[in-house]
Amino acid sequence: MLSSRKAWGLDLGLESAALAGDRRALARLLSHVENGAAEGRAALAALFSRTGRAHIIGITGSPGAGKSTLVGKLAQEIRAYGRRLAIVAVDPTSPFSGGALLGDRLRMRELASDEGVFIRSMASRGHPGGIAHATRDVVLLLDAIGFPVVIVETVGAGQAQVEVARVAHTVVLVEAPGMGDDVQALKAGLMEIADIIVVNKADRPEAKQTVRALQFVRRDMGSAGHHGAGALQPATEPVVLGWDPPILQTAAIESQGISELWDAIQAHRRYLEESGAWDVLRKRHARAEVESWLQRHLMLLLEERIGELRMNEAVDRVLRREQDPATAARNLLGAALEPDRDPIA
Amino acid sequence: MLSSRKAWGLDLGLESAALAGDRRALARLLSHVENGAAEGRAALAALFSRTGRAHIIGITGSPGAGKSTLVGKLAQEIRAYGRRLAIVAVDPTSPFSGGALLGDRLRMRELASDEGVFIRSMASRGHPGGIAHATRDVVLLLDAIGFPVVIVETVGAGQAQVEVARVAHTVVLVEAPGMGDDVQALKAGLMEIADIIVVNKADRPEAKQTVRALQFVRRDMGSAGHHGAGALQPATEPVVLGWDPPILQTAAIESQGISELWDAIQAHRRYLEESGAWDVLRKRHARAEVESWLQRHLMLLLEERIGELRMNEAVDRVLRREQDPATAARNLLGAALEPDRDPIA
Repeated sequence: MLSSRKAWGLDLGLESAALAGDRRALARLLSHVENGAAEGRAALAALFSRTGRAHIIGITGSPGAGKSTLVGKLAQEIRAYGRRLAIVAVDPTSPFSGGALLGDRLRMRELASDEGVFIRSMASRGHPGGIAHATRDVVLLLDAIGFPVVIVETVGAGQAQVEVARVAHTVVLVEAPGMGDDVQALKAGLMEIADIIVVNKADRPEAKQTVRALQFVRRDMGSAGHHGAGALQPATEPVVLGWDPPILQTAAIESQGISELWDAIQAHRRYLEESGAWDVLRKRHARAEVESWLQRHLMLLLEERIGELRMNEAVDRVLRREQDPATAARNLLGAALEPDRDPIA
Repeated sequence: MLSSRKAWGLDLGLESAALAGDRRALARLLSHVENGAAEGRAALAALFSRTGRAHIIGITGSPGAGKSTLVGKLAQEIRAYGRRLAIVAVDPTSPFSGGALLGDRLRMRELASDEGVFIRSMASRGHPGGIAHATRDVVLLLDAIGFPVVIVETVGAGQAQVEVARVAHTVVLVEAPGMGDDVQALKAGLMEIADIIVVNKADRPEAKQTVRALQFVRRDMGSAGHHGAGALQPATEPVVLGWDPPILQTAAIESQGISELWDAIQAHRRYLEESGAWDVLRKRHARAEVESWLQRHLMLLLEERIGELRMNEAVDRVLRREQDPATAARNLLGAALEPDRDPIA
């Protein structure tokens, strides 16, 4: 009893300390949130009313496009205006996440020593409910703590980018020259979720060609409206009509084009607010959060109700080809949701 | 009544026709499976007892590594031994999926005209239950139809590669020189799921350096055992102990190293069978299939039980910050699983 009260005391202490700017308290709170621990869930519930104020910026693109360097320089630009910000690195190749080359990580250390910048790197695995759920919770907590800007860096390929789009207000797609010339590929999976397109390493000779290829794809997509790419199924329902994603050029290592990028990000936010799309996005985010928790509650409920024994028996029937997986799952579900049992633990 | 009987007749016709080698019937059946249609579910259930015989090979890696060309050449190699095979392209940059450059696609057309090769490209979106579920079903159906080899090509980054590992027996990781030099990144997300590592475009001068970097990482991982990478949380429990992933060099465009790759893939399969790991993998696949269907049944059940109205009300409470998403979801779930309602529709 004492230890439980003590645990509560500690918990409330962590929240207050994090709100007061204690970075170590915030880091510990985020670990609880990431691990799906009860303390994390309690903190999220307690602080939820404070969320909804941060501008959440997703930065995505192929490995090697220079996303992390760009994020670092963008952070410095934002700090030059005196704004505090948080960086969440979900990208396993990011120096923020301990990946990438040693030199990159040394450069990032400089940024990390700035009290106005909070950096959180997330392992791409080890989250009970999956990385997408964990990222959503981490971003919510950073929003609640009061960071006006939260940057989420993810490595981009298919599903991962769609997930970024579901958590961010503004999605920046970063490509490097040469890699971005595969026009069809870009069209298929990447550009329809981008609000701003950046050709990084623009000092390379191939950059012009990449910009032209991207302009071509954008024009081609234009007729279908942004976020809806012709015959392709759109990633999400179109929110922002009439916003034509600008194609910017940066050379992040040389700090070139960074202030233009920040201007474009702010212009996008203004556009969202003035067009009413900001409210549509907020509603969509709220829905995604509820759905995310529905999935997690359900899986926990099932694990508890079904149990390892019944699960193993079902798997064995499937292995012996006595039952197909869909039927086995339906039977497990039927047994787990028997009406004579209390539906919610 | 007539139309329903007619539909059943057509359905059984499709299955028999697909089993007899009718490619158009198979393509239509796969569309039903991909779309989650009732005909697809019925076909999977009816044909499930025929599954479990195909060698499922996952080919993954960064965009631009040359995966599709490698898959094409590997297919020709397999055909030279007279074996039939199916290729499932989940990679949006793959020419099989309509992505990539026109030249690539023309080269692939040659392969597609071979009656012994069946190519299925999957959109990365538009699957009711998500791309991972749809891929699993498509692979199962191709297995049931009797293809002894099924190659699954996915673009590799984080979660996507873990998903490949969950469906394949043998995972081939393809890297291009230069891109693979980011040792930490490889270590973090990629190498621990690879059974065979390929440095493609090995005619480039930087290839040697990439091979050395990969050898270094592999040695480093060796002490923790393959599939378990030191301090990192492993993607999956280790299945194959004692298998040291070979690092091969290929130049797919020049057809170099392809027969060595096929030899390595076959050696891996023999190793799986002799070590008993094949059975462990089969059991794991069966479990993943049951879990995949559990998730899908549940989401359908909830959509039906909760309904759009109650969902919108919950989202509005979250939007107004009256309730946090976790609490809103728990309440929705409680209402949906009320004991006075029939648990399974």
